[in-house]
Amino acid sequence: MSNTKILLDESELPTHWYNVIADLPTPPAPYLGADGQPVSPEQLGAIFPPGLLEQEISTQRWIEIPEKVRSILRLWRPSPLYRARRLEAILGTPAKIYYKYEGGSPAGSHKPNSAVAQAYYNKIAGIKRLTTETGAGQWGSAISLAGNMFGLEVRVYMVKVSYEQKPFRRSMIQTWGGEVLPSPTTLTAAGRQALENDPNCQGSLGIAISEAVEEAASRQDTNYTLGSVLNHVLLHQTVIGLETRKQLEKVGDYPDVIFAPCGGGSNVGGMMFPFLADKAAGKEIRLVAVEPSSCPTLTRGEYAYDYGDSVGLTPLIQMYTLGHDFMPPGIHAGGLRYHGDSALVSQLYHEGVLEAIAVPQLATFESGVMFSKAEGIVPAPESNHAIHAAIDEALRCKERSEGKTILFTLSGHGHFDMASYDRYFSGELTDQAYPEEALQAALRNLPQVK
Amino acid sequence: MSNTKILLDESELPTHWYNVIADLPTPPAPYLGADGQPVSPEQLGAIFPPGLLEQEISTQRWIEIPEKVRSILRLWRPSPLYRARRLEAILGTPAKIYYKYEGGSPAGSHKPNSAVAQAYYNKIAGIKRLTTETGAGQWGSAISLAGNMFGLEVRVYMVKVSYEQKPFRRSMIQTWGGEVLPSPTTLTAAGRQALENDPNCQGSLGIAISEAVEEAASRQDTNYTLGSVLNHVLLHQTVIGLETRKQLEKVGDYPDVIFAPCGGGSNVGGMMFPFLADKAAGKEIRLVAVEPSSCPTLTRGEYAYDYGDSVGLTPLIQMYTLGHDFMPPGIHAGGLRYHGDSALVSQLYHEGVLEAIAVPQLATFESGVMFSKAEGIVPAPESNHAIHAAIDEALRCKERSEGKTILFTLSGHGHFDMASYDRYFSGELTDQAYPEEALQAALRNLPQVK
Repeated sequence: MSNTKILLDESELPTHWYNVIADLPTPPAPYLGADGQPVSPEQLGAIFPPGLLEQEISTQRWIEIPEKVRSILRLWRPSPLYRARRLEAILGTPAKIYYKYEGGSPAGSHKPNSAVAQAYYNKIAGIKRLTTETGAGQWGSAISLAGNMFGLEVRVYMVKVSYEQKPFRRSMIQTWGGEVLPSPTTLTAAGRQALENDPNCQGSLGIAISEAVEEAASRQDTNYTLGSVLNHVLLHQTVIGLETRKQLEKVGDYPDVIFAPCGGGSNVGGMMFPFLADKAAGKEIRLVAVEPSSCPTLTRGEYAYDYGDSVGLTPLIQMYTLGHDFMPPGIHAGGLRYHGDSALVSQLYHEGVLEAIAVPQLATFESGVMFSKAEGIVPAPESNHAIHAAIDEALRCKERSEGKTILFTLSGHGHFDMASYDRYFSGELTDQAYPEEALQAALRNLPQVK
Repeated sequence: MSNTKILLDESELPTHWYNVIADLPTPPAPYLGADGQPVSPEQLGAIFPPGLLEQEISTQRWIEIPEKVRSILRLWRPSPLYRARRLEAILGTPAKIYYKYEGGSPAGSHKPNSAVAQAYYNKIAGIKRLTTETGAGQWGSAISLAGNMFGLEVRVYMVKVSYEQKPFRRSMIQTWGGEVLPSPTTLTAAGRQALENDPNCQGSLGIAISEAVEEAASRQDTNYTLGSVLNHVLLHQTVIGLETRKQLEKVGDYPDVIFAPCGGGSNVGGMMFPFLADKAAGKEIRLVAVEPSSCPTLTRGEYAYDYGDSVGLTPLIQMYTLGHDFMPPGIHAGGLRYHGDSALVSQLYHEGVLEAIAVPQLATFESGVMFSKAEGIVPAPESNHAIHAAIDEALRCKERSEGKTILFTLSGHGHFDMASYDRYFSGELTDQAYPEEALQAALRNLPQVK
């Protein structure tokens, strides 16, 4: 019988996260303060607990996952790896297509993998409240779920355009006891500034980050959490790639190419980092980040020091960036609307280890609908980016009669994104014009590092 | 290590459905025509394919599941059985609580288990189009998914109040290529009649059934499908109970009591029938259907012959009924708003094999929120009925220090029902007044069987 799903038993849940920093040829560039000096742990300690700060800079290859974290991850992990046999048949490709499905978590995406860990380390540090920002609402719901499990209060600054387009992720945040506010708000200086500049401001991840960081920095009992970008977030997400390796071993397979959607980089890092050692050892494997062409951070941005938020409250991070005040068009893959990218993903892309491609919005929906008709699952718009790249690759394999093994992360389901599908079906959805002018202006405004 | 999920491998997917008719002490009463005579297979053949009609009356204990059906079921089955350890801890109960989670299917509920089988038997009978009705949209999305997988066109008559309250299940039906119309429509005589009686009619499952049946009966290439009530639907759902038995065996456990939400009976039949033989053999096990107190078919209805739809197009079925023209209040558990109940569930309840309880709406949401905070998954309002009963039982066990084993079906997730949760949180949700007068009127209007 031919397998559809490759499952792991709970006893096979990874016991350690994989820390890619241990295996980097060059150490990561430090985060810098506005003065151009490396930021001290004490400064970051205003918004992060010690456990996460240690992970942020650790060079230890394997970091043990606390049992209290694993016991919650077991509510949905290990997650299934699927062989997309029906999609393969419809495409008529000789390629094998696998997808790792992260939509089975209670929040419907991969985000809780890190949210649970972050809530745990804040809890043991005596923190009572967490703040965060959210775009599509995936991270906001994940941290609300995780905060609730450890008895922490959660306040979510949700990008206004998403708050209005995706009311039901709000409701989900509330079901788990979290508070959710449309950003920009008048509660923070950053929010007030954004509203002064543009009273109709629809918000952005950058502004929402500024708000959440500002509040966390100003309160002793409150810390900030982030759903992507930072090293410790990508570390927590490596359970995805670690499980996938085991699952492929069970069926005696190995990927020729891996695709993951790329916004802040947590999908890319989570899935791909555990395969890097093989690549370093000479294994032929392509690792491809897929980003939206209207927010093409890796493919069109600069590799430079920039702020993680739009106002300049965070440290400077060396990363690919479109400029911290670049405001991406309101595409439906809200989780990919971020001006920057993970420092680790950026460095590996810069060093030529990872590849990146940018794909237009309409094509991603087309591929997502094709996928859902073939495999059943209706994917999140973010995930459609990886699906689109995988289908393209499978069709190239068909042209060339190549039996490659293609792997991608299906990072979340689209049950909270049906309004976006409605717009696609009604023909209202368009490919956003490439924001060349705004991008050039934002790039001219990159901070000067002394 | 203590298990959270009990998984089965794909190779353990049931190969046969369990047909409870083989083990009933008394044979089921026949379906009758308006003339009081048993309906012939030829008459039903106008809207059902031969494969399903055979199953409807078969007395064979085990019926093989076709490989083409199993290959699609493997996209989400076997489904996980969870031990609700976090809920147990929060309740402080000595009871063990297990739940079988059916929300992992692409449509988010148990409904596709039968939809796939129904689409298959229609396909091999040469049928090109399927009609159906849907309440909350769970069945409509399931049959759209299944029809698409077998290349069949699907038209869904969706109860108007749900069509408006749950726009995103509509979108999902459309994503899989199905057509969805708010019922009553002007396309059918039944719909036109309902609109004549009340131009603002919000629809009901009964009216929508009438519309779907009327269309199927009038077209050679079109058949009707139903998501519950009929014997073959409950047959297909027995994969739930069959898997659960195996999963409990793996951990050496057995339920003292099983709860399932009860609308048309497919959850009850699917989970409970595979445990009936044990009960007949003297095993002490309670099997409890949980229905809404505003639509209390088993607990307040009459055991009589009645129509399955509101107009009287279907055969007469001996079942518990509130009267075919009883219009239940617009509760949020739309899937439980049905005047009748499965003939098999009704007979077993009448014979005292199954029990039933009715629970009020507010209490079910309260329990659903408690559950989601404990276990993560946000349940569908229908599922909250079983959850409420299970929590009540666990609290009774606590009072009496009884270490019972409680099992329930978590039939679907609530990602399409967040507007209902919003109403609950805002205090707008109420317990519907018990519709005594309407019920008495409907019961007086039961058909007279000659």
